[in-house]
Amino acid sequence: MSELGHEVLAAVLQVRSRSLQVLLWRRAREPQVGRWSLPGGQLGATEDIEASVRRQLAEKVDVRQLSHVEQLAVFSAPDRVPGDRVIASTFLALVRSDNDPVIPDDTSWFPIDALPDTAFDHQAVVLRARDRLRSKLSYTNVGFALAAPEFTVSALRDVYSAALGYRVSATNLQRVLSRRGQLEPTGETVPPGPSGGRPAALFRFARASIQITDPFAVFRPPATTPPPAPPSPPTESASRA
Amino acid sequence: MSELGHEVLAAVLQVRSRSLQVLLWRRAREPQVGRWSLPGGQLGATEDIEASVRRQLAEKVDVRQLSHVEQLAVFSAPDRVPGDRVIASTFLALVRSDNDPVIPDDTSWFPIDALPDTAFDHQAVVLRARDRLRSKLSYTNVGFALAAPEFTVSALRDVYSAALGYRVSATNLQRVLSRRGQLEPTGETVPPGPSGGRPAALFRFARASIQITDPFAVFRPPATTPPPAPPSPPTESASRA
Repeated sequence: MSELGHEVLAAVLQVRSRSLQVLLWRRAREPQVGRWSLPGGQLGATEDIEASVRRQLAEKVDVRQLSHVEQLAVFSAPDRVPGDRVIASTFLALVRSDNDPVIPDDTSWFPIDALPDTAFDHQAVVLRARDRLRSKLSYTNVGFALAAPEFTVSALRDVYSAALGYRVSATNLQRVLSRRGQLEPTGETVPPGPSGGRPAALFRFARASIQITDPFAVFRPPATTPPPAPPSPPTESASRA
Repeated sequence: MSELGHEVLAAVLQVRSRSLQVLLWRRAREPQVGRWSLPGGQLGATEDIEASVRRQLAEKVDVRQLSHVEQLAVFSAPDRVPGDRVIASTFLALVRSDNDPVIPDDTSWFPIDALPDTAFDHQAVVLRARDRLRSKLSYTNVGFALAAPEFTVSALRDVYSAALGYRVSATNLQRVLSRRGQLEPTGETVPPGPSGGRPAALFRFARASIQITDPFAVFRPPATTPPPAPPSPPTESASRA
Protein backbone atom coordinates (compact mmCIF):
# COMPACT_ATOMS: atom_id res chain seq x y z
CA MET A 1 0.00 0.00 0.00
CA SER A 2 1.17 3.51 -0.67
CA GLU A 3 1.88 5.62 2.39
CA LEU A 4 -0.49 8.52 2.69
CA GLY A 5 -1.87 10.79 5.31
CA HIS A 6 -5.55 10.52 6.06
CA GLU A 7 -7.53 13.27 7.76
CA VAL A 8 -11.16 13.72 8.65
CA LEU A 9 -12.91 17.07 8.27
CA ALA A 10 -16.40 18.14 9.33
CA ALA A 11 -18.61 20.85 7.90
CA VAL A 12 -20.83 21.68 10.89
CA LEU A 13 -23.83 23.63 9.62
CA GLN A 14 -26.49 25.53 11.54
CA VAL A 15 -29.19 28.04 10.66
CA ARG A 16 -28.22 31.14 12.69
CA SER A 17 -29.71 34.63 12.30
CA ARG A 18 -31.72 33.40 9.32
CA SER A 19 -28.68 32.27 7.36
CA LEU A 20 -26.98 28.92 6.87
CA GLN A 21 -23.63 29.09 8.66
CA VAL A 22 -20.57 26.89 9.04
CA LEU A 23 -18.17 26.49 11.96
CA LEU A 24 -14.53 27.38 11.15
CA TRP A 25 -11.38 27.91 13.20
CA ARG A 26 -8.49 30.25 12.42
CA ARG A 27 -5.12 28.64 11.82
CA ALA A 28 -2.50 29.95 14.25
CA ARG A 29 0.46 28.21 12.59
CA GLU A 30 1.82 27.39 9.19
CA PRO A 31 0.82 26.10 6.77
CA GLN A 32 -1.76 28.68 5.76
CA VAL A 33 -1.56 30.63 9.02
CA GLY A 34 -4.50 32.98 9.45
CA ARG A 35 -6.79 31.10 7.10
CA TRP A 36 -10.01 29.52 8.31
CA SER A 37 -10.26 25.73 8.52
CA LEU A 38 -12.86 23.08 9.05
CA PRO A 39 -12.57 21.19 12.35
CA GLY A 40 -10.79 17.88 12.01
CA GLY A 41 -7.34 16.36 11.91
CA GLN A 42 -5.47 13.17 11.29
CA LEU A 43 -7.05 9.77 11.64
CA GLY A 44 -5.75 7.89 14.65
CA ALA A 45 -4.30 4.40 14.37
CA THR A 46 -7.04 2.69 16.35
CA GLU A 47 -10.17 4.56 15.31
CA ASP A 48 -12.44 4.52 12.30
CA ILE A 49 -13.36 7.79 10.61
CA GLU A 50 -16.68 8.11 12.45
CA ALA A 51 -14.97 7.86 15.86
CA SER A 52 -12.24 10.19 14.66
CA VAL A 53 -14.54 12.96 13.54
CA ARG A 54 -16.43 12.88 16.83
CA ARG A 55 -13.18 12.95 18.80
CA GLN A 56 -11.88 15.90 16.85
CA LEU A 57 -15.15 17.80 16.78
CA ALA A 58 -15.25 17.51 20.56
CA GLU A 59 -12.37 20.00 20.67
CA LYS A 60 -14.65 22.62 19.12
CA VAL A 61 -18.23 21.87 20.12
CA ASP A 62 -20.25 19.77 22.51
CA VAL A 63 -20.83 16.82 20.22
CA ARG A 64 -24.05 16.03 22.07
CA GLN A 65 -25.41 19.08 20.27
CA LEU A 66 -24.91 17.46 16.87
CA SER A 67 -28.32 16.42 15.64
CA HIS A 68 -27.08 14.53 12.57
CA VAL A 69 -23.69 13.41 11.21
CA GLU A 70 -23.12 11.63 7.90
CA GLN A 71 -20.25 10.90 5.54
CA LEU A 72 -20.07 13.54 2.83
CA ALA A 73 -17.33 12.66 0.31
CA VAL A 74 -13.65 11.93 -0.06
CA PHE A 75 -11.45 14.78 -1.28
CA SER A 76 -8.32 13.29 -2.77
CA ALA A 77 -6.71 15.59 -5.35
CA PRO A 78 -2.96 14.91 -5.15
CA ASP A 79 -2.19 18.60 -4.57
CA ARG A 80 -4.99 19.43 -2.13
CA VAL A 81 -2.46 19.91 0.69
CA PRO A 82 0.68 21.34 -0.91
CA GLY A 83 3.82 19.34 -0.16
CA ASP A 84 1.96 16.42 1.43
CA ARG A 85 -0.29 13.65 0.21
CA VAL A 86 -3.32 13.81 2.46
CA ILE A 87 -6.68 12.24 1.70
CA ALA A 88 -9.66 13.83 3.45
CA SER A 89 -12.78 11.95 4.50
CA THR A 90 -15.36 14.67 5.03
CA PHE A 91 -18.59 14.77 7.01
CA LEU A 92 -21.73 16.84 7.10
CA ALA A 93 -22.82 17.60 10.67
CA LEU A 94 -25.87 19.60 11.75
CA VAL A 95 -26.84 21.58 14.85
CA ARG A 96 -30.44 22.50 15.68
CA SER A 97 -31.22 26.19 15.34
CA ASP A 98 -32.18 26.64 19.00
CA ASN A 99 -28.69 25.68 20.22
CA ASP A 100 -25.87 28.14 20.71
CA PRO A 101 -22.86 25.91 21.32
CA VAL A 102 -19.96 27.14 23.43
CA ILE A 103 -16.96 27.37 21.08
CA PRO A 104 -13.27 28.22 21.58
CA ASP A 105 -11.80 31.68 20.97
CA ASP A 106 -10.20 30.66 17.67
CA THR A 107 -13.51 29.38 16.31
CA SER A 108 -16.42 31.23 14.75
CA TRP A 109 -19.58 30.81 12.67
CA PHE A 110 -19.67 32.25 9.16
CA PRO A 111 -22.54 32.54 6.70
CA ILE A 112 -21.76 30.22 3.80
CA ASP A 113 -22.65 33.12 1.51
CA ALA A 114 -19.82 35.17 3.05
CA LEU A 115 -16.93 32.87 3.84
CA PRO A 116 -13.61 34.32 4.95
CA ASP A 117 -10.31 33.17 3.39
CA THR A 118 -10.44 29.41 3.81
CA ALA A 119 -7.57 26.94 3.96
CA PHE A 120 -6.73 24.27 1.36
CA ASP A 121 -9.88 22.95 -0.36
CA HIS A 122 -12.11 23.59 2.62
CA GLN A 123 -14.36 25.99 0.74
CA ALA A 124 -15.18 23.22 -1.72
CA VAL A 125 -16.02 20.94 1.20
CA VAL A 126 -18.36 23.57 2.68
CA LEU A 127 -20.16 24.06 -0.62
CA ARG A 128 -20.49 20.31 -1.09
CA ALA A 129 -21.99 20.04 2.40
CA ARG A 130 -24.45 22.83 1.65
CA ASP A 131 -25.49 21.18 -1.61
CA ARG A 132 -25.94 17.80 0.07
CA LEU A 133 -28.12 19.39 2.74
CA ARG A 134 -30.23 21.21 0.14
CA SER A 135 -30.78 18.02 -1.83
CA LYS A 136 -31.73 16.08 1.26
CA LEU A 137 -34.24 18.70 2.36
CA SER A 138 -36.15 17.78 -0.80
CA TYR A 139 -36.41 14.03 -0.27
CA THR A 140 -35.73 13.34 3.43
CA ASN A 141 -36.89 14.57 6.82
CA VAL A 142 -33.47 16.11 7.57
CA GLY A 143 -35.22 19.31 8.60
CA PHE A 144 -35.57 17.70 12.04
CA ALA A 145 -31.82 18.22 12.50
CA LEU A 146 -31.96 21.94 11.66
CA ALA A 147 -35.15 23.02 13.42
CA ALA A 148 -35.70 23.38 17.15
CA PRO A 149 -37.39 20.35 18.76
CA GLU A 150 -40.71 22.26 18.74
CA PHE A 151 -41.58 25.05 16.36
CA THR A 152 -44.34 27.01 14.72
CA VAL A 153 -44.81 26.46 11.00
CA SER A 154 -43.61 30.01 10.47
CA ALA A 155 -40.36 29.29 12.34
CA LEU A 156 -39.88 26.08 10.35
CA ARG A 157 -40.40 27.99 7.14
CA ASP A 158 -37.64 30.40 8.19
CA VAL A 159 -35.25 27.51 8.83
CA TYR A 160 -35.99 25.88 5.46
CA SER A 161 -35.73 29.22 3.66
CA ALA A 162 -32.33 29.95 5.21
CA ALA A 163 -31.00 26.49 4.40
CA LEU A 164 -32.29 26.53 0.82
CA GLY A 165 -31.35 30.13 0.10
CA TYR A 166 -34.82 31.17 -1.06
CA ARG A 167 -38.15 31.79 0.57
CA VAL A 168 -40.56 28.85 0.73
CA SER A 169 -44.28 28.89 1.45
CA ALA A 170 -45.21 28.01 5.04
CA THR A 171 -48.56 26.65 3.88
CA ASN A 172 -47.05 24.27 1.36
CA LEU A 173 -44.29 23.21 3.70
CA GLN A 174 -46.82 22.26 6.36
CA ARG A 175 -49.09 20.50 3.89
CA VAL A 176 -46.41 18.36 2.32
CA LEU A 177 -44.57 17.45 5.51
CA SER A 178 -47.86 16.61 7.21
CA ARG A 179 -49.06 14.53 4.28
CA ARG A 180 -45.83 12.55 4.45
CA GLY A 181 -46.35 11.93 8.14
CA GLN A 182 -43.32 13.99 9.15
CA LEU A 183 -44.98 16.73 11.19
CA GLU A 184 -47.17 16.28 14.22
CA PRO A 185 -48.82 18.87 16.44
CA THR A 186 -47.60 18.98 20.04
CA GLY A 187 -51.04 20.19 21.19
CA GLU A 188 -49.50 23.39 22.54
CA THR A 189 -49.64 26.90 21.12
CA VAL A 190 -47.59 30.04 21.50
CA PRO A 191 -49.32 33.38 22.15
CA PRO A 192 -49.72 35.84 19.28
CA GLY A 193 -47.00 38.47 18.84
CA PRO A 194 -47.37 42.16 19.74
CA SER A 195 -49.20 42.82 16.47
CA GLY A 196 -51.98 40.47 17.57
CA GLY A 197 -53.49 37.58 15.66
CA ARG A 198 -54.21 34.04 16.76
CA PRO A 199 -52.04 31.78 18.90
CA ALA A 200 -49.78 29.66 16.69
CA ALA A 201 -49.75 25.88 17.00
CA LEU A 202 -46.51 24.14 17.87
CA PHE A 203 -45.26 21.15 15.88
CA ARG A 204 -42.46 18.66 16.05
CA PHE A 205 -40.94 16.20 13.61
CA ALA A 206 -42.32 12.69 14.03
CA ARG A 207 -38.84 11.17 13.76
CA ALA A 208 -35.40 12.34 14.84
CA SER A 209 -33.39 10.11 12.53
CA ILE A 210 -33.02 10.60 8.84
CA GLN A 211 -35.45 8.90 6.52
CA ILE A 212 -36.50 9.26 2.91
CA THR A 213 -39.89 10.96 3.14
CA ASP A 214 -41.33 9.77 -0.12
CA PRO A 215 -39.99 6.24 -0.23
CA PHE A 216 -40.67 4.35 -3.41
CA ALA A 217 -43.09 6.98 -4.55
CA VAL A 218 -42.36 5.71 -8.00
CA PHE A 219 -44.18 2.50 -7.28
CA ARG A 220 -47.16 3.75 -5.37
CA PRO A 221 -50.65 3.36 -6.72
CA PRO A 222 -52.21 6.60 -8.00
CA ALA A 223 -53.08 9.19 -5.39
CA THR A 224 -56.80 8.38 -5.14
CA THR A 225 -56.17 5.60 -2.62
CA PRO A 226 -53.76 5.80 0.28
CA PRO A 227 -50.51 4.00 -0.47
CA PRO A 228 -49.89 0.73 1.31
CA ALA A 229 -47.16 0.98 3.90
CA PRO A 230 -43.98 -0.67 2.66
CA PRO A 231 -43.02 -3.69 4.79
CA SER A 232 -39.93 -1.92 6.13
CA PRO A 233 -39.37 1.70 5.24
CA PRO A 234 -35.99 2.15 3.59
CA THR A 235 -33.55 4.14 5.62
CA GLU A 236 -30.76 6.16 4.15
CA SER A 237 -27.83 4.22 2.91
CA ALA A 238 -25.30 6.94 3.69
CA SER A 239 -23.46 5.89 6.80
CA ARG A 240 -23.93 7.89 9.91
CA ALA A 241 -21.56 8.28 12.77
CA MET B 1 -0.01 12.54 9.40
CA SER B 2 -0.28 8.88 10.26
CA GLU B 3 0.96 6.49 7.59
CA LEU B 4 -1.84 4.42 6.17
CA GLY B 5 -2.67 2.51 3.08
CA HIS B 6 -5.53 3.79 0.97
CA GLU B 7 -7.38 1.63 -1.52
CA VAL B 8 -10.32 2.17 -3.80
CA LEU B 9 -12.97 -0.52 -4.34
CA ALA B 10 -15.89 -0.61 -6.73
CA ALA B 11 -19.16 -2.49 -6.46
CA VAL B 12 -20.16 -2.85 -10.12
CA LEU B 13 -23.84 -3.79 -10.26
CA GLN B 14 -25.95 -4.98 -13.16
CA VAL B 15 -29.36 -6.56 -13.57
CA ARG B 16 -28.62 -9.92 -15.24
CA SER B 17 -31.05 -12.81 -15.66
CA ARG B 18 -33.65 -10.89 -13.66
CA SER B 19 -31.42 -10.55 -10.58
CA LEU B 20 -29.18 -7.79 -9.28
CA GLN B 21 -25.61 -9.01 -9.63
CA VAL B 22 -22.16 -7.80 -8.63
CA LEU B 23 -18.79 -8.26 -10.34
CA LEU B 24 -16.19 -10.10 -8.21
CA TRP B 25 -12.77 -11.61 -8.87
CA ARG B 26 -11.24 -14.62 -7.18
CA ARG B 27 -8.07 -14.00 -5.20
CA ALA B 28 -5.19 -16.14 -6.47
CA ARG B 29 -2.77 -15.24 -3.67
CA GLU B 30 -2.68 -14.62 0.04
CA PRO B 31 -4.14 -12.96 1.93
CA GLN B 32 -7.51 -14.64 1.70
CA VAL B 33 -6.62 -16.74 -1.33
CA GLY B 34 -9.68 -18.19 -3.03
CA ARG B 35 -12.07 -15.60 -1.67
CA TRP B 36 -13.96 -13.26 -3.94
CA SER B 37 -13.01 -9.56 -4.02
CA LEU B 38 -14.33 -6.32 -5.38
CA PRO B 39 -12.25 -4.81 -8.18
CA GLY B 40 -9.86 -2.12 -6.98
CA GLY B 41 -6.46 -1.61 -5.47
CA GLN B 42 -4.17 0.93 -3.94
CA LEU B 43 -4.45 4.60 -4.68
CA GLY B 44 -1.58 5.85 -6.83
CA ALA B 45 0.56 8.80 -5.79
CA THR B 46 -0.56 11.10 -8.58
CA GLU B 47 -4.24 10.25 -8.98
CA ASP B 48 -7.39 11.11 -7.11
CA ILE B 49 -9.80 8.35 -6.11
CA GLU B 50 -12.05 8.89 -9.12
CA ALA B 51 -9.15 8.43 -11.55
CA SER B 52 -7.90 5.50 -9.51
CA VAL B 53 -11.16 3.58 -9.57
CA ARG B 54 -11.49 3.99 -13.32
CA ARG B 55 -7.89 2.88 -13.86
CA GLN B 56 -8.37 -0.20 -11.71
CA LEU B 57 -11.80 -1.08 -13.06
CA ALA B 58 -10.32 -1.01 -16.55
CA GLU B 59 -8.47 -4.21 -15.67
CA LYS B 60 -11.80 -5.98 -15.28
CA VAL B 61 -14.34 -4.32 -17.58
CA ASP B 62 -14.56 -1.87 -20.43
CA VAL B 63 -15.14 1.26 -18.40
CA ARG B 64 -16.99 2.81 -21.31
CA GLN B 65 -19.76 0.37 -20.38
CA LEU B 66 -20.19 1.98 -16.96
CA SER B 67 -23.37 4.02 -17.12
CA HIS B 68 -22.94 5.66 -13.70
CA VAL B 69 -20.19 5.87 -11.06
CA GLU B 70 -20.48 7.60 -7.70
CA GLN B 71 -18.68 7.63 -4.36
CA LEU B 72 -20.34 5.24 -1.96
CA ALA B 73 -18.69 5.44 1.49
CA VAL B 74 -15.41 5.11 3.32
CA PHE B 75 -14.77 1.84 5.14
CA SER B 76 -12.19 2.46 7.83
CA ALA B 77 -12.46 -0.04 10.67
CA PRO B 78 -8.90 -0.48 12.01
CA ASP B 79 -9.05 -4.26 11.56
CA ARG B 80 -10.78 -4.39 8.18
CA VAL B 81 -7.61 -5.75 6.57
CA PRO B 82 -5.88 -7.91 9.20
CA GLY B 83 -2.28 -6.93 9.84
CA ASP B 84 -2.45 -3.70 7.83
CA ARG B 85 -4.12 -0.35 8.23
CA VAL B 86 -5.93 0.24 4.96
CA ILE B 87 -8.71 2.74 4.43
CA ALA B 88 -11.09 1.95 1.56
CA SER B 89 -12.88 4.57 -0.52
CA THR B 90 -15.69 2.67 -2.18
CA PHE B 91 -17.75 3.36 -5.27
CA LEU B 92 -21.06 2.27 -6.71
CA ALA B 93 -20.83 1.64 -10.47
CA LEU B 94 -23.65 0.53 -12.76
CA VAL B 95 -23.84 -1.28 -16.11
CA ARG B 96 -26.92 -1.21 -18.33
CA SER B 97 -28.79 -4.50 -18.55
CA ASP B 98 -28.32 -4.87 -22.32
CA ASN B 99 -24.51 -5.02 -22.01
CA ASP B 100 -22.56 -8.20 -21.49
CA PRO B 101 -19.05 -6.95 -20.74
CA VAL B 102 -16.04 -9.07 -21.59
CA ILE B 103 -14.41 -10.00 -18.28
CA PRO B 104 -11.23 -11.88 -17.34
CA ASP B 105 -11.17 -15.57 -16.41
CA ASP B 106 -10.77 -14.85 -12.69
CA THR B 107 -13.84 -12.61 -12.66
CA SER B 108 -17.51 -13.45 -12.48
CA TRP B 109 -20.97 -12.04 -11.80
CA PHE B 110 -22.84 -13.18 -8.69
CA PRO B 111 -26.41 -12.49 -7.59
CA ILE B 112 -26.19 -10.31 -4.48
CA ASP B 113 -28.70 -12.68 -2.91
CA ALA B 114 -26.23 -15.56 -3.31
CA LEU B 115 -22.72 -14.23 -2.78
CA PRO B 116 -19.79 -16.63 -2.57
CA ASP B 117 -17.19 -16.35 0.22
CA THR B 118 -16.07 -12.75 0.02
CA ALA B 119 -12.79 -11.20 1.16
CA PHE B 120 -12.32 -8.73 4.02
CA ASP B 121 -15.38 -6.47 4.45
CA HIS B 122 -16.35 -6.64 0.79
CA GLN B 123 -19.72 -8.19 1.50
CA ALA B 124 -20.63 -5.14 3.58
CA VAL B 125 -19.57 -2.91 0.70
CA VAL B 126 -21.76 -4.85 -1.72
CA LEU B 127 -24.78 -4.61 0.56
CA ARG B 128 -24.19 -0.91 1.08
CA ALA B 129 -24.05 -0.43 -2.69
CA ARG B 130 -27.29 -2.37 -3.14
CA ASP B 131 -29.02 -0.28 -0.46
CA ARG B 132 -27.78 2.97 -1.98
CA LEU B 133 -29.09 1.89 -5.38
CA ARG B 134 -32.47 0.91 -3.94
CA SER B 135 -32.81 4.24 -2.16
CA LYS B 136 -31.87 6.18 -5.26
CA LEU B 137 -34.41 4.32 -7.39
CA SER B 138 -37.04 5.95 -5.19
CA TYR B 139 -35.99 9.58 -5.57
CA THR B 140 -33.75 9.80 -8.66
CA ASN B 141 -33.81 8.76 -12.31
CA VAL B 142 -30.95 6.27 -11.74
CA GLY B 143 -32.99 3.63 -13.55
CA PHE B 144 -31.49 5.06 -16.75
CA ALA B 145 -28.18 3.48 -15.72
CA LEU B 146 -29.68 0.00 -15.22
CA ALA B 147 -32.09 -0.23 -18.16
CA ALA B 148 -31.21 -0.67 -21.81
CA PRO B 149 -31.20 2.61 -23.79
CA GLU B 150 -34.65 1.72 -25.19
CA PHE B 151 -37.13 -0.57 -23.52
CA THR B 152 -40.74 -1.57 -23.21
CA VAL B 153 -42.45 -0.70 -19.95
CA SER B 154 -42.61 -4.38 -19.18
CA ALA B 155 -38.83 -4.72 -19.58
CA LEU B 156 -38.28 -1.66 -17.39
CA ARG B 157 -40.54 -3.15 -14.75
CA ASP B 158 -38.40 -6.30 -14.77
CA VAL B 159 -35.24 -4.22 -14.25
CA TYR B 160 -36.74 -2.27 -11.35
CA SER B 161 -38.18 -5.41 -9.80
CA ALA B 162 -34.80 -7.16 -9.91
CA ALA B 163 -32.97 -4.19 -8.45
CA LEU B 164 -35.51 -3.64 -5.68
CA GLY B 165 -36.00 -7.29 -4.84
CA TYR B 166 -39.77 -7.25 -5.20
CA ARG B 167 -42.23 -7.01 -8.06
CA VAL B 168 -43.45 -3.54 -8.97
CA SER B 169 -46.43 -2.58 -11.11
CA ALA B 170 -45.59 -1.70 -14.72
CA THR B 171 -48.59 0.62 -14.90
CA ASN B 172 -47.58 2.61 -11.85
CA LEU B 173 -43.94 2.73 -12.87
CA GLN B 174 -44.85 4.16 -16.24
CA ARG B 175 -47.31 6.65 -14.78
CA VAL B 176 -44.99 8.05 -12.14
CA LEU B 177 -41.86 8.23 -14.28
CA SER B 178 -43.83 9.84 -17.10
CA ARG B 179 -45.43 12.36 -14.76
CA ARG B 180 -41.99 13.33 -13.54
CA GLY B 181 -40.83 13.84 -17.09
CA GLN B 182 -38.37 10.97 -16.94
CA LEU B 183 -39.79 8.67 -19.63
CA GLU B 184 -40.38 9.54 -23.24
CA PRO B 185 -41.69 7.37 -26.08
CA THR B 186 -39.25 6.71 -28.91
CA GLY B 187 -42.14 6.46 -31.38
CA GLU B 188 -41.18 2.87 -32.19
CA THR B 189 -42.84 -0.37 -31.17
CA VAL B 190 -41.79 -3.98 -30.88
CA PRO B 191 -43.98 -6.73 -32.34
CA PRO B 192 -46.13 -8.81 -30.00
CA GLY B 193 -44.68 -12.06 -28.70
CA PRO B 194 -45.68 -15.54 -29.87
CA SER B 195 -48.76 -15.47 -27.66
CA GLY B 196 -50.08 -12.48 -29.61
CA GLY B 197 -51.34 -9.18 -28.27
CA ARG B 198 -50.57 -5.66 -29.39
CA PRO B 199 -47.19 -4.22 -30.35
CA ALA B 200 -45.48 -2.69 -27.30
CA ALA B 201 -44.27 0.90 -27.36
CA LEU B 202 -40.59 1.61 -26.78
CA PHE B 203 -39.45 4.23 -24.29
CA ARG B 204 -36.21 5.82 -23.20
CA PHE B 205 -35.15 7.91 -20.22
CA ALA B 206 -35.21 11.62 -20.94
CA ARG B 207 -31.82 12.12 -19.26
CA ALA B 208 -28.72 9.97 -18.95
CA SER B 209 -27.22 11.69 -15.93
CA ILE B 210 -28.48 11.35 -12.41
CA GLN B 211 -31.05 13.80 -11.13
CA ILE B 212 -33.47 13.96 -8.25
CA THR B 213 -36.82 13.28 -9.90
CA ASP B 214 -39.03 15.03 -7.41
CA PRO B 215 -36.88 18.03 -6.55
CA PHE B 216 -38.17 20.20 -3.75
CA ALA B 217 -41.50 18.44 -3.85
CA VAL B 218 -41.85 19.65 -0.29
CA PHE B 219 -42.25 23.19 -1.49
CA ARG B 220 -44.46 22.70 -4.48
CA PRO B 221 -47.94 24.10 -4.63
CA PRO B 222 -50.67 21.48 -4.25
CA ALA B 223 -51.11 19.02 -7.08
CA THR B 224 -54.07 20.72 -8.80
CA THR B 225 -51.79 23.05 -10.75
CA PRO B 226 -48.59 21.99 -12.46
CA PRO B 227 -45.54 22.93 -10.42
CA PRO B 228 -43.42 25.81 -11.66
CA ALA B 229 -40.06 24.63 -12.94
CA PRO B 230 -37.32 25.47 -10.46
CA PRO B 231 -34.80 27.98 -11.87
CA SER B 232 -32.03 25.38 -11.95
CA PRO B 233 -32.91 21.80 -11.09
CA PRO B 234 -30.71 20.55 -8.27
CA THR B 235 -28.34 17.85 -9.31
CA GLU B 236 -27.06 15.23 -6.99
CA SER B 237 -24.44 16.31 -4.54
CA ALA B 238 -22.66 12.96 -4.48
CA SER B 239 -19.52 13.25 -6.54
CA ARG B 240 -19.27 11.23 -9.67
CA ALA B 241 -16.18 10.04 -11.38
